Amino acid sequence: MNILFIMADQWRADCLGSAGHPLVATPHLDALAAQGVRCDRAFVQSAVCGPSRMCFLTGRYVHAHRSSWNGVPLPEDERTLDYYFSDAGYQVAGIGKVGYPADGERLPSLEAAGYDRARDRLAHPGSAWYERQQGGYAGFLRAHGYNSADPVNEFANTVITPSGRMLSGWDFRAAPHPLRVRAEHSRPAFQTDLAMRFIKEAKQPWLLQLSYIEPHWPIVAPAPYHAMYDRGQVPEPQRHPRELEHPLLEPFRTERRSRPLDSEWVWRSLRATYYGMMSLVDDQLGRLFHFLRAEGLWDQTVIVFVSDHGEYLGDHWLFEKELFYEQAVRIPWIMRSPGRTFDATRGQAIEAFVESVDLVPTLLDLCGLPLGHRLQGRSLVPLLRGESPGDWRRAVVTDWDYRFYGVGERLGIPPQRRRAWMIRDDRFKYVHFLDLPPMLFDLENDPAELHDLAQSGSYPDIIARKRLELLEWRMAHEDPSRSEWLRRRKGSSGVAVPADGTANYGPWGDPATEGVEEPIL
Amino acid sequence: MNILFIMADQWRADCLGSAGHPLVATPHLDALAAQGVRCDRAFVQSAVCGPSRMCFLTGRYVHAHRSSWNGVPLPEDERTLDYYFSDAGYQVAGIGKVGYPADGERLPSLEAAGYDRARDRLAHPGSAWYERQQGGYAGFLRAHGYNSADPVNEFANTVITPSGRMLSGWDFRAAPHPLRVRAEHSRPAFQTDLAMRFIKEAKQPWLLQLSYIEPHWPIVAPAPYHAMYDRGQVPEPQRHPRELEHPLLEPFRTERRSRPLDSEWVWRSLRATYYGMMSLVDDQLGRLFHFLRAEGLWDQTVIVFVSDHGEYLGDHWLFEKELFYEQAVRIPWIMRSPGRTFDATRGQAIEAFVESVDLVPTLLDLCGLPLGHRLQGRSLVPLLRGESPGDWRRAVVTDWDYRFYGVGERLGIPPQRRRAWMIRDDRFKYVHFLDLPPMLFDLENDPAELHDLAQSGSYPDIIARKRLELLEWRMAHEDPSRSEWLRRRKGSSGVAVPADGTANYGPWGDPATEGVEEPIL
Repeated sequence: MNILFIMADQWRADCLGSAGHPLVATPHLDALAAQGVRCDRAFVQSAVCGPSRMCFLTGRYVHAHRSSWNGVPLPEDERTLDYYFSDAGYQVAGIGKVGYPADGERLPSLEAAGYDRARDRLAHPGSAWYERQQGGYAGFLRAHGYNSADPVNEFANTVITPSGRMLSGWDFRAAPHPLRVRAEHSRPAFQTDLAMRFIKEAKQPWLLQLSYIEPHWPIVAPAPYHAMYDRGQVPEPQRHPRELEHPLLEPFRTERRSRPLDSEWVWRSLRATYYGMMSLVDDQLGRLFHFLRAEGLWDQTVIVFVSDHGEYLGDHWLFEKELFYEQAVRIPWIMRSPGRTFDATRGQAIEAFVESVDLVPTLLDLCGLPLGHRLQGRSLVPLLRGESPGDWRRAVVTDWDYRFYGVGERLGIPPQRRRAWMIRDDRFKYVHFLDLPPMLFDLENDPAELHDLAQSGSYPDIIARKRLELLEWRMAHEDPSRSEWLRRRKGSSGVAVPADGTANYGPWGDPATEGVEEPIL
Repeated sequence: MNILFIMADQWRADCLGSAGHPLVATPHLDALAAQGVRCDRAFVQSAVCGPSRMCFLTGRYVHAHRSSWNGVPLPEDERTLDYYFSDAGYQVAGIGKVGYPADGERLPSLEAAGYDRARDRLAHPGSAWYERQQGGYAGFLRAHGYNSADPVNEFANTVITPSGRMLSGWDFRAAPHPLRVRAEHSRPAFQTDLAMRFIKEAKQPWLLQLSYIEPHWPIVAPAPYHAMYDRGQVPEPQRHPRELEHPLLEPFRTERRSRPLDSEWVWRSLRATYYGMMSLVDDQLGRLFHFLRAEGLWDQTVIVFVSDHGEYLGDHWLFEKELFYEQAVRIPWIMRSPGRTFDATRGQAIEAFVESVDLVPTLLDLCGLPLGHRLQGRSLVPLLRGESPGDWRRAVVTDWDYRFYGVGERLGIPPQRRRAWMIRDDRFKYVHFLDLPPMLFDLENDPAELHDLAQSGSYPDIIARKRLELLEWRMAHEDPSRSEWLRRRKGSSGVAVPADGTANYGPWGDPATEGVEEPIL
């Protein structure tokens, strides 16, 4: 069984045709969901690219892998998806944004020592091994006639307005205008070409992580996707003036470029083009799925589609991600595995709580590989079979290390205290901050999360319970990588045996004999 | 400045003459305290040897270094006391029980790659490098005429009773009888000999970790220490029948050999000989301090004396350590640094909360070395100068991973949930268990910790506050080793700069201009 792990960047969970979005068309992902399952309550452990991806790749929570923000080194001894499958004999490759930060402090000495780092097989910081091998996107663009020293920026991230003015994709005003590359030369098309080349050349079984950068900002698209959706029809942002009363919101959104989205023209333009970027990716996936069928691989390949987190697009007065609203922490998750095993759930949506840390255990389980003691996620295989394990998680937890933002400094919070944890169950979402007020949302009565119940101070019992749940969740999820390694070898042995093996301690060896008085010796 | 770091094993904080113990004589440690300071509220982060020692050596909490029980591998990338000082040009050595478990999973490949592991300079699992170099204690015993294939057990851990019967030290009945070695051939004497040899040969500056195994069980001592204290006069155990109502207590104490200490003869005998072992170590320290003076090194050497945790000796119906009573988690901590800097506190006892993680930062600070971003403890230097930093910690936290004990299995608690956290401040000690009732003690009104207020259920507000404190402590003490590394290089940069450097996003670049409507381009 091959594995095609597709990851989009910043793709909101609600932006799937099959999930009922009023505008965005994703026919190929919808077809995939119709043949597999859609997990409608899938959540990330971090709403920031790097740490979220490290959870997907390690099967471990942020506090365990410790790469808590973009660029924070992943410790050398973390094992990643590629490591597990490469060791199991799979040919592995990564295309697109799959790189992760190496352990900057230790890497040079390890490399000098020739240490065989499994992750080198897949990726390096910045760009993927396979993409680099092909000369990269810049080379691809030049080969197709986009002559420039920097064709990625000059063509693939630049639009021309009707008056002939050129604008960078980083400029919000660029959103309604077409990129200077044709759709078949866009980055998703390039990556899809690479994916097909890899699949054609690869020895089976293979694992391919195909990571599209879209629909992450800059929000610009090639024709016809730039104008595919009418900005007059996009859903309006969900926001309420009282949200800005939380002391983090205004300084944070100011820092994170969110205030422009207060303008209706901006959120309408960004939303319409954001949807266009999704349809562009969806069309490329259609091409890839067609290719898999033509190659006879469709029924020998597990396909997973997820995103690393969502995007606000003006909801809650925010742009991009971070914080813990559903738009950021809930993600699309579609899985399709061939064969008859999962027929019971085909075409269905699963409501069980799924977390990003479940990816590695699920793929290992699907391929009959051992799960090992390091993993903190759970295999979704029982859910895919239609079972409802009684001990399935009842809440999801997301973590945010915001020491790298200016807002912590502005609010006078020391770096080690710039941390927030969210716990979300069926009914409530609770966010605990250090040195800032908490947030509490009743998702049943306020699914849009517009009314922070913690502000009113009238829910002390629920807040106390949520704090206890967070405390206990954290206690029960300490990193098992060292302790479980030993326990599984040693067992829960009870009484420690003295080094010399003479494990007697007098007549008291048998607890039934306690109370014996001074022995005659 | 040289550093002599002396660690005893299982030495209760109250067992120092200068701290007012009614029986035990420790004149040499008392003299050291008179010239330095005694920290009377020093606590360990774990009441188990291995994890506690790793906190001392790394300056990091158990959840950060992750060596959460004896033998749980210390991750390869943890930096230890010897690493810091070896890199700073100190000659470092460890004598006695200083070894720690190497990272079993990774060690072979790293060693094959020739990776320069700093910790190899100090110690290996089991016994210390320096001790091994000298042929070990067995060789020492043989050289002094103790002829045996296993002289350590046959002589140094065996007693002869008045009737001529031989008993292993592991047998509680051995406690009142003298070991078959003379005091000058006991292990503390052997280790002290080695320490003096190292100091004589070492190039200054040096750091020596001298780790005595005494007074850890087996509780036996050579003459005259075996009979130095009258067992009729030892303090009685502090225990109350209601303590056994906590569901963990009875199965745990049964597993951990505690029930024999219900017998008066047993606790009296063990207590008396335990004190004798302390006096044996104290006498050896007297010899070592005399040697330092004779060599002219007394005023060029920082001396620290601590223990890795305490010992119950029948208090709370327990033997050895674990759990969180003061007898286990509070330790002796004496520091003496030459020069005039600390004259203000000489001979005094400090009441500020000190934690084992403070050792590394304190020693680095005393020697003018940088503290770096990994350390979680704080330098005690301001306290030693007589200052009272306003932001000093107001509570100490101790962690217990009991997945390795039989009691978790017996109580039906899954391995990852066999965890307990303690927070102790001026007034209260709160212990949170997963799947078991908590414990709460009012240390002001019940310093002996005999009345668990959580049992009565009448202190919900205090318990809720303590849970919040634990939650927040944990959030604020996530492992900083990767995140702070990056933050200190990168800063809290605020807005992320796009890869191409064109960080403009239209007229909305300046937040003051939000509200701009559709631009004419």
